[in-house]
Amino acid sequence: MNSSISQLLSLEKAKDLVDSTQAFLFDCDGVIWKGDKLIDGVPRTLDFLRSKGKKLVFVTNNSTKSRKQYANKFLSLGISVSEEEIFSSSFAAAMYLQLINFPQHKKVCCFFFFFVFFPVVSLHCFLSIQVYVIGEQGILEELQLAGFTALGGPEDGKKTVQLKSNCLFEHDKSVGAVVVGLDQYINYYKLQYGTLCIRENPGCLFIATNRDAVGHMTDLQEWPGAGCMVAAICGTTQKEPIVVGKPSTFLMDFLLKKFDISCSKMCMVGDRLDTDILFGQNAGCKTLLVLSGVTTLSALQDASNKTHPDYYTNKLSDIFEMLQP
Amino acid sequence: MNSSISQLLSLEKAKDLVDSTQAFLFDCDGVIWKGDKLIDGVPRTLDFLRSKGKKLVFVTNNSTKSRKQYANKFLSLGISVSEEEIFSSSFAAAMYLQLINFPQHKKVCCFFFFFVFFPVVSLHCFLSIQVYVIGEQGILEELQLAGFTALGGPEDGKKTVQLKSNCLFEHDKSVGAVVVGLDQYINYYKLQYGTLCIRENPGCLFIATNRDAVGHMTDLQEWPGAGCMVAAICGTTQKEPIVVGKPSTFLMDFLLKKFDISCSKMCMVGDRLDTDILFGQNAGCKTLLVLSGVTTLSALQDASNKTHPDYYTNKLSDIFEMLQP
Repeated sequence: MNSSISQLLSLEKAKDLVDSTQAFLFDCDGVIWKGDKLIDGVPRTLDFLRSKGKKLVFVTNNSTKSRKQYANKFLSLGISVSEEEIFSSSFAAAMYLQLINFPQHKKVCCFFFFFVFFPVVSLHCFLSIQVYVIGEQGILEELQLAGFTALGGPEDGKKTVQLKSNCLFEHDKSVGAVVVGLDQYINYYKLQYGTLCIRENPGCLFIATNRDAVGHMTDLQEWPGAGCMVAAICGTTQKEPIVVGKPSTFLMDFLLKKFDISCSKMCMVGDRLDTDILFGQNAGCKTLLVLSGVTTLSALQDASNKTHPDYYTNKLSDIFEMLQP
Repeated sequence: MNSSISQLLSLEKAKDLVDSTQAFLFDCDGVIWKGDKLIDGVPRTLDFLRSKGKKLVFVTNNSTKSRKQYANKFLSLGISVSEEEIFSSSFAAAMYLQLINFPQHKKVCCFFFFFVFFPVVSLHCFLSIQVYVIGEQGILEELQLAGFTALGGPEDGKKTVQLKSNCLFEHDKSVGAVVVGLDQYINYYKLQYGTLCIRENPGCLFIATNRDAVGHMTDLQEWPGAGCMVAAICGTTQKEPIVVGKPSTFLMDFLLKKFDISCSKMCMVGDRLDTDILFGQNAGCKTLLVLSGVTTLSALQDASNKTHPDYYTNKLSDIFEMLQP
């Protein structure tokens, strides 16, 4: 139901929603937590849904962590979630490269010089194809787990540039993809490196984990999101990226292949209209907006807003409060 | 003449162009120099044009320097140019704020607590209105010369952020404008600071010195331009800036007020189609593209290119070579 008017979740509607849903997909920032603080009532609501036999999936655009790091974060907040239940945009970037059969190596001709009888012998060697990362540890970990060679990321966070005559900024010509996500260590070095790869390496891909303008990096306020770094690279390369996180359908297609559940039996729960709710609607899921994150009631009801979830409520635990035995 | 086909400069056309032009407007990067290296033959060409009584004006989108710093750079390269002949986008940002009467101070009510007879006395105080700068020294200098209080810039280049619980990133609520230009010391601190000012300070202006994707920051290669930093702030604020540099007409309107010369008697000489040539055409000037900077002959002649200068030539000194006595 993608009606143009969203309905406030009531006891009856919450019951209908839970009864008709086999899998709940949750955004994390603004739904489960804000920064490192759990949102009130989340653990008992997740326990309640699990007790009803519902499948829980956590779909986050925040690329700073890998699935393993997210599982640890859940655990540190007292919630047990397995890595298989987590779909982060860092993982999506790695899965996208796997899906398109992005080569991990390239066959090249190497020449060896010997002595008198065989002056030159040519053999095939394998050159590693690299992925340059403007982003944090989560992307590097997921790329490496998927078998790719990644460079950049946090390691380049302290590098500086020298704008001097006769000084050439060198970049690796074997970089075949640049992955851009949220990066609190963004600097001119990384911007130049990523730009050179995209502009000068033939066929180099430009992949964005997501384009969220801002995110709740801490509990008290929002901070520039991956949309900031991605826009910077768009601004300098004048190219548009392939987006793998929400609201792109790539992640949903991947989810659907993994779980044998029809979209109409899924409900996407999120705090953002432009990513979470749009993501759910693009796939034909039911959608529930929670007002515990970036979207306010007035933003939802503003005449300029064109994205309307099926339901909205203050926070995730309202489901538990309404339906608890 | 904004014909759809550009003409290669010939002896006859060069003569016509010089004879019919009272003022030559020159871009700097890619026309006069590349990084810190002078392009061959520039000094004798400028001397030749001055000897013919032509007015010379240097119009650069590079905001990293102030007019004074540019005059020094010219001098260090053996060319004498006065500050009054230089129009940089750093200067344009300051002039824009002056033109719109951007307040340097705001009148506020201050309350003073005294003793028995006059428990509260209210007086008017003046609070300084600040300009936050994502950019380099040139913008700060021009803003200060024009009487504005500027903060940010190079000073914030080494600042870092703490993404911790209960930690609030504070910004100055008296910032009334954010000026964004090329910044080789761009970091997450500045991006968050600028974003908070634009999103949270009522009426705060978002001013871009220019939106050049890349620039010849060194002689050997191009680097991310102001378009990179401006796009980053667009990405996180989801707002569009007021652009004061080329190809915006603001700088030309300012130039026309200063010099009593008709646009048809001016010729804009530049190496970029999307800024220099468009800037000249927007104002009704003649335009000459030099191929000594970012634009190649094939880019000019590509079917997708919609911006055609009146004339093109390899480098500025071709004028001198053709017309020298």
